[in-house]
Amino acid sequence: MNGFRHVVMFKWAEGTTTGQQDEVAARLGELPAVIPEIREYSLGSDAGVNPAAYDFAVVADFADREAYLAYRDHPAHRAVVEKYITPITAERASIQYET
Amino acid sequence: MNGFRHVVMFKWAEGTTTGQQDEVAARLGELPAVIPEIREYSLGSDAGVNPAAYDFAVVADFADREAYLAYRDHPAHRAVVEKYITPITAERASIQYET
Repeated sequence: MNGFRHVVMFKWAEGTTTGQQDEVAARLGELPAVIPEIREYSLGSDAGVNPAAYDFAVVADFADREAYLAYRDHPAHRAVVEKYITPITAERASIQYET
Repeated sequence: MNGFRHVVMFKWAEGTTTGQQDEVAARLGELPAVIPEIREYSLGSDAGVNPAAYDFAVVADFADREAYLAYRDHPAHRAVVEKYITPITAERASIQYET
């Protein structure tokens, strides 16, 4: 099935608590119910296999670029980013590609 | 379906040619045929939506951590990394998580 994939990963800042990390996953996990453009939504915390790994990832699938942009700019998504993610982010890496 | 996901993205070095980038995708694309532990294998080049994005991503799914490690350390994979990927990599970001 052709589509558009958004991948993002984060390294959390020193001193970030597990509670703050859990809150990010919980709040993001609510988004598929309120943003219908999300086709598939996968969240995960690093399994600890490789030392240089990032801490948390989101892999999100959409029908097309426009559906991704609707998610990126959706007020419910922006609110989670601004309130829960940005305050604890040390590094962020992302890419979007056609699938 | 529960499993184990490996996500990695790269920024290519200044001066990397499109031919070198295409070679990476072509060589990686041969791996599912020779590494049976790969369950799903998705490759993509940045769609150009967000300026800070990385250039190339791999999202690979496995049955479990051991299957991922078999892929990570497989000689055919290591050969692609060493010959085609490492020489043109400026930045690399990766994470592994249980799905």
